[in-house]
Amino acid sequence: MKKLINNPEYVVEEMIDGYVKAHSSYVKRLEGNDRALVTSKETKEGKVGILIGGGSGHEPAFMGYVGAGMADGVAIGNIFASPPPAPILEVTKAIDKGAGVVYLYGNYAGDVMNFGMAADLAAMEDIQVEMVLATDDVASAPKEEKDKRRGIAGEFLVYKMAGAAADFGYDLKEVARVARKANENTRSMGVGLSSCSLPQTGEPSFILGDDEMEVGLGHHGEPGIRKAPVDKADNVVDELLDNILGDMEINKGDDVVVLVNGLGSTPLMELYIMFRRVDEVLKEKGINIYRSYVGEYITSLEMGGASITVTKVDDEMKKMVDHPVDCPMFVQR
Amino acid sequence: MKKLINNPEYVVEEMIDGYVKAHSSYVKRLEGNDRALVTSKETKEGKVGILIGGGSGHEPAFMGYVGAGMADGVAIGNIFASPPPAPILEVTKAIDKGAGVVYLYGNYAGDVMNFGMAADLAAMEDIQVEMVLATDDVASAPKEEKDKRRGIAGEFLVYKMAGAAADFGYDLKEVARVARKANENTRSMGVGLSSCSLPQTGEPSFILGDDEMEVGLGHHGEPGIRKAPVDKADNVVDELLDNILGDMEINKGDDVVVLVNGLGSTPLMELYIMFRRVDEVLKEKGINIYRSYVGEYITSLEMGGASITVTKVDDEMKKMVDHPVDCPMFVQR
Repeated sequence: MKKLINNPEYVVEEMIDGYVKAHSSYVKRLEGNDRALVTSKETKEGKVGILIGGGSGHEPAFMGYVGAGMADGVAIGNIFASPPPAPILEVTKAIDKGAGVVYLYGNYAGDVMNFGMAADLAAMEDIQVEMVLATDDVASAPKEEKDKRRGIAGEFLVYKMAGAAADFGYDLKEVARVARKANENTRSMGVGLSSCSLPQTGEPSFILGDDEMEVGLGHHGEPGIRKAPVDKADNVVDELLDNILGDMEINKGDDVVVLVNGLGSTPLMELYIMFRRVDEVLKEKGINIYRSYVGEYITSLEMGGASITVTKVDDEMKKMVDHPVDCPMFVQR
Repeated sequence: MKKLINNPEYVVEEMIDGYVKAHSSYVKRLEGNDRALVTSKETKEGKVGILIGGGSGHEPAFMGYVGAGMADGVAIGNIFASPPPAPILEVTKAIDKGAGVVYLYGNYAGDVMNFGMAADLAAMEDIQVEMVLATDDVASAPKEEKDKRRGIAGEFLVYKMAGAAADFGYDLKEVARVARKANENTRSMGVGLSSCSLPQTGEPSFILGDDEMEVGLGHHGEPGIRKAPVDKADNVVDELLDNILGDMEINKGDDVVVLVNGLGSTPLMELYIMFRRVDEVLKEKGINIYRSYVGEYITSLEMGGASITVTKVDDEMKKMVDHPVDCPMFVQR
């Protein structure tokens, strides 16, 4: 696949270079580690630090969410690969203001290992760390094993709520509680239409037929639950929502936040056509959409497809969702 | 190409349905015209109305830019086709608060005809209209014939500045002056890597070889100035900037706004790699980037590629660029 890049070996460095230049009033690199970014606006003393991270290729995640109301720092890995412990530890030290740091990341083996190691290293420097893993993808493991599920686009809502809690001055345990509550009430499921390719190889990372879609596909091309000819958007939405809602305790009158997330090359037009059906189905069920997000929040390079996320929200979570955010790639007034 | 849609004939209606449902606190449909949207927050009495519009398929343009600090209303056409005069006139009547309305649109034959007819009809209802056409694409006609050029991503900056001027209480002539000044100081040029396809046909709207790019390609697949094997991002940026800067009166010490715009399927990673080079080149030339925008601002469905826009700004224009915006698809604090 064609790409507007220079040397495939340096795409992550050059992307971060461009990003930091474009948004120097928001973020800066930590000296000595090119893959560690922190907010340019000093984190307040006593505020719990929010650290996010993961592989590159998911932009605007994760670096786009460092800013007021979201994260204080981000550790960036290679494309679709976890950051090593070093940048995670560096960011931790930079954003700890005496109140500890919460690590928010998706449930992938590499991330679990590296964030875990960084937390151990941070403990040796007397920095308290809480870790909250996103496990929102209902297609990736059965309901009884939610803790084995992958994190996909629903992670965005975990960042949103945890970031707000930290901003409101909640302490470490409380911020972690809000993040876990956000994750526990969040379910996502996606559909893939076409693959992306890694800059190093230029080859598609999975293969679908010309008329084929894959329901339940993961953010790195992990296999879904079935392949089938591309169906009408309404039918696809119905299938995703059936799986999502069937996995939650949700009743008439409940409030939810909805995220329709594009994976990379799927036009906004299609995402809004999907949202239209989500709205119809939820209305039929008497479920109230408290707030909605439609767009590209966590992508997979130029992958084609989308995911739907539903988060059941109570009053505390609504307050977190409504809190303003000012990040380079996400602003909410 | 695969799409998540229902009936190809109804994609625009269903997209608008979803959009209005997702953003009902920002926009509403005018009764009696499904393709005419206006701000949900009543336009202030005496404020000049800002009307934007054009074909669908360019999302977030144009409807994403109706909101505080940008446009008061939008008329929406079929995919890559001008809206007819009727929705333009309806929006005009709805957003005129006694101070007249400025139409902002790209220089395309259909738009010129339909917005012109709508302006004539508005005049018959005693509504004053000023029209400002975006003509920023340097690849589409020689320098001596700037008024024959197409409007591409630079239109976004015309909306931004005109919307601010209207918000500051400028009168009709003054808002139009600011919009024209924005356009006169704006130059863009793009590169295409892969085609999009119309939902009705599913066929690519132009053909490029597996390793080919088209420099100067238009937003609807209009031919560019040359086809060539895909080059390194830095070389592509250098060529685009050579054409852009060579077309402007720009000197060391000048301030510019830069927009690196993705056409649809090009990942943010590549846009930031491009921005990195833009920053380098401008720094070498002693030109100061006052503000930058990197992302998808005016797309062409899932087209692959990007454009660069440079706008030379004076103090008045900086004030306009800095003015906050709150739209569903663009927020600036």
